[in-house]
Formats: sequence, structure tokens, C-alpha cells
Amino acid sequence: MGEVARAEPGRTRIGWIGTGVMGAPMCGHLMEAGFPATVTTRSRERARGLLERGAVWADTPAAVAARSDVIFSMVGYPDDVREVVLGPDGALEGCAPGAVLVDMTTSRPSLAGEIARAAELRGVHALDAPVSGGEGGARAGTLSIMIGGEAGAVAALDLCWRALGATVVRQGGPGTGQHAKMVNQTLIASALVGVCEALLYAQRAGLDPERVLESVGAGAAGSWQLANLGPRMLASDWKAGFYVEHFLKDLSIALDESARIGLALPGLALARRLVEALVEQGHGRSGTQALVLALASLSDLDWPPAPVPR
Amino acid sequence: MGEVARAEPGRTRIGWIGTGVMGAPMCGHLMEAGFPATVTTRSRERARGLLERGAVWADTPAAVAARSDVIFSMVGYPDDVREVVLGPDGALEGCAPGAVLVDMTTSRPSLAGEIARAAELRGVHALDAPVSGGEGGARAGTLSIMIGGEAGAVAALDLCWRALGATVVRQGGPGTGQHAKMVNQTLIASALVGVCEALLYAQRAGLDPERVLESVGAGAAGSWQLANLGPRMLASDWKAGFYVEHFLKDLSIALDESARIGLALPGLALARRLVEALVEQGHGRSGTQALVLALASLSDLDWPPAPVPR
Repeated sequence: MGEVARAEPGRTRIGWIGTGVMGAPMCGHLMEAGFPATVTTRSRERARGLLERGAVWADTPAAVAARSDVIFSMVGYPDDVREVVLGPDGALEGCAPGAVLVDMTTSRPSLAGEIARAAELRGVHALDAPVSGGEGGARAGTLSIMIGGEAGAVAALDLCWRALGATVVRQGGPGTGQHAKMVNQTLIASALVGVCEALLYAQRAGLDPERVLESVGAGAAGSWQLANLGPRMLASDWKAGFYVEHFLKDLSIALDESARIGLALPGLALARRLVEALVEQGHGRSGTQALVLALASLSDLDWPPAPVPR
Repeated sequence: MGEVARAEPGRTRIGWIGTGVMGAPMCGHLMEAGFPATVTTRSRERARGLLERGAVWADTPAAVAARSDVIFSMVGYPDDVREVVLGPDGALEGCAPGAVLVDMTTSRPSLAGEIARAAELRGVHALDAPVSGGEGGARAGTLSIMIGGEAGAVAALDLCWRALGATVVRQGGPGTGQHAKMVNQTLIASALVGVCEALLYAQRAGLDPERVLESVGAGAAGSWQLANLGPRMLASDWKAGFYVEHFLKDLSIALDESARIGLALPGLALARRLVEALVEQGHGRSGTQALVLALASLSDLDWPPAPVPR
């Protein structure tokens, strides 16, 4: 395939598919950087803020792609990615040769490979570029972006990445962005289980959790999960920074992939079971810190548990 | 019991039992701060450095205690603590009323309670004060010290704590220092499992681990374990910062205690099984980063594993 034209504000037309809590602020950053945007999403109401700021509406991903040079997608599940990229009205259908498709959804590495192959047949470049940093990172433009795909296409979108994230690393060929995101989620999974178990232990042993955090937070036990989600668990604040139901999706993909590459990852498998139980407890739309409730349930305890009698 | 005299350099005589990789530098810091020291340890050779710097040798813990106002112990296992504190030639046997016993070994919370009760009967104060920060923290004097016991006795030893550690927090009554340490180890256990699984996944998926660490290290997946032990795993460097066999002791205590207080902690239980398997593989004297070998073995893989063929 040919060289990819360097994306330039004012000249390069971007498309955005999926303007939810992540997609809307991300697309907004590209518009602020000077990229004219065409957008679509499941319910037009969710795109209103962007439309008021000058984005153009299109009815389908294919129609978005027909008006765009670089088309980003940020949707929910791998099946959604398949539909908005490869489906009958999907973006690939509308792409001109030389366009670039960038899927930023956390999705299956194998699907990223499939999209890249389908795109190549039509002279279109495809990148997988999932992010970490959540809604806060999307709003602040400080996401970590993990990119898989052709080096030239990644480099050409330099000004787009800079508008969206603070840490931008090309991991390798198609699918490697998704693999890197699975590494990220595998780390989070067990770290989070550890935080839940540790705080459950602290409460049940009758310790003062604030004092314990003072002792353990800065050393070898320290983690982002402890520093950021520990206090929310202690406050029984289940407001979502990252939805439990999306975490279940991610851990399920990671577990499927690990099986495919011949890995038994018992910590990941344990975390997935606990997260699944939490969804069954009705916490799909809570934040991941609610996992402490699933651990408490295992011991038939409320949260916070009563200290064990001395 | 009466007030505890404030520990003062030049006046307060300290005793030290157990001058291993942790105990020797810790006792050395107290001597540098001006506290005259009497020491004993299993093999006199291990105390030579301290003796050359002016410490006095005694043949038994009881003899150390007979010459000391504040007696510290830093030994291996709970059975060692029982022997050097409560045994026939143990420290308590030699203590004058008003002395303070400080066990800094990571040991059972229930044993700390038992020691405190036995000490009280003889007018002796007992504190449990395990640490985190490892050999590096012991040498640098930057340990986190988690203390259980009477507030007055903890405050009286202020100048001793300052010589030994950077973070000093009284957690509550007898045993709470040990409980806080169990919280610390529970956090480390699952975080470490996550790091092992994530790097195994990264290698097996054919990613460049350095690039992955660049993407995931600074965000929600970040932890001390990842930042410090991840690179050692990737370098197959098993040199011990913290021995696997000591980690097995700690996780076994934490699991026993959690069962005692009615908690099922599956992440902790998983980590303990993996650490036990690692000891059985002959890695008891390796550093805890060697846990990645136990995870690789589960999938019948070497470390680093060959990437799965595309």
C-alpha cells in the first residue's frame, strides 16, 4: 500500500464512530486541534455536544467514512466493532483507498488482525489503538494509547495521537495494540483483587484502614489501584470510573486470548470469576472498586465487615 | 504498668537479637544514633561487623536482655520468635521490670498478643513492629515500621524508630503491627501474580516487553512490583531482594490468620500455592520475582517463553 498522507489540522477530515463517555471528549480534542469531524453514534442525542461545536452528522459508519480521511471508532464490544467496521453499512464500505481506520475500542486482537487484512484488500490502512486512562484520561487528553499496525500509518497520525493522549507507543503489527491492552488489564485484575482482599482483611482484623494505608501505600505494596480505588472502597463509593461490565468484557477477551496462546493464568481467571459474580450481583454499572463486595460475599460478610470479636 | 522512660542516645542501652541481612544494618543505625548495644545471634560470625564497631556480645537472648533497657528481635520464623523471647534462655527471662521488648520479625499476630500478655505479668512492655522495605530499606534506614502495642511505649521509643525507618505508624494494640504487615503482604501477593501473568502474556504474544512497560507502567496498571520486579523478570535476574522462602512464611501466616477471622481470600491462597510450588522448584533463596517461573511452569513453558507461532 502507498504512503499515508500526514494528518494536518484544517486539511485532514476525521470521522468518529461512537460518541460515548470516552468517544465524545476524544473527538472533541481532535476538533479543538483543528480537525473537521463527521460523527455517528447509536443515538444522535449522545452526539449533540459535538454537533453544536460544528461536527457534521452522518447516519451510518459508511457515510462517516465516505466524508473522512481518518476514521476512528470507539464503541462497546467486539461485536459492535465488527458491525461498525466490517458490517454492511460499516466504515470500510465507505472508505476511499488511502483512508485510515483506527479502532480505539478495547477488543479482540484477532479481530484487529481480521480488520487489517480486510482493509488491505481495499487499499485502506487499519490500526488498533486501545487506550488506558478511563473517562478522566479521555477528558484530560492524557490517555495512554497502545497502537498496533503499520509504522508509516502510525507516524502519519502523529498530530491526532498528540491531541488524544500523553503516552503513545506503537507496539508492533496489527493486533499488538490490543495485546498490550490485555497486558494492562491482566495487571489491573490481580492488583485489584489484592486491594480488595487486603482492605477486607484490615477491616475484619479491626485495624484503622487509614493508618494501614499510611504504612503500606508508599512501599512494595503500593499501586495505582490501591492509591485510587482503596479510598473509594473504604468510603463505599461505587460511582464508576470504569464500569464493571466493561472490565468483564476485557478480562474475558484476555482469558480467551491467553488460552489461545497456550497460557494458564490463574490470577486472571480468578479475577474474571469474581467480576462475573459482581455483575450477577447487579453491579455491572458500578465502578471496578465494587469488586470488594464480591470478595466480602465470598466470606458471607457485608461491607464493611464487622471486626471479628476479640 | 508504669510509664516508659524515653529512649535517649548515650543513656538507653539497647539489645539486639538476630543480626542477619535485616538485623545487622538496623542495629548499626541505632549504634550510629548513639545507643550502646549488646547483641546475640545464632552464629557469632554474623555479628562481627557490629562487634568491631563497639557492640558487646552476649551468649543468650536472656543475657542480652539483662544488660539492656530496650531489646529488639529480628529473627526468621514465629518459632524462632517464641524461642528467643519466651524460651528458657529467652529475652523475657532476662528483662528487668520496665524494659521494652520489640519484636520486628514478621510473625503471627496471635504470638504478638501472647508475648504482650506474658510480658505484662513481669512488668515488661512488648511491641510488635514488623517492617517493609527489605534489605535496601534496612540499610538506608527508610523502612516502613508497623507497630502494635501500648501508645506510651511506642512514643517513648521515638528516637529509635527515627533511626530505623522513614514511615512509622502505630496501628493499635498488641498484634496490630503484625496484622498491618499481613495487609502489606496480601497486597504484594496478588500484585506480584499480576506482574508475572502480564509479562508471561506479553512475551508469549510476541510483544516487545520494553514497549509494553512504557505503555502500561504509568497508569492504572502501575505498581511498585511492576516497576521494580518487572525489569528483573525480563532480565531473568533472580537475585534476592526478598527471599521466596520468607514470602512463603508470610503468606502462610496471612492465610492462617484470614481463616481465623473468617475470611476466604482466594487471591492470597492462589499466591501461596504458587510460591510453595516455587520453593519446591528449588527457588527458596531466590528473590520473589522468580515467581514468574512458577507461572511459566503451569503452562509447561520455559522463561522467557517462545512467542506463539503466528
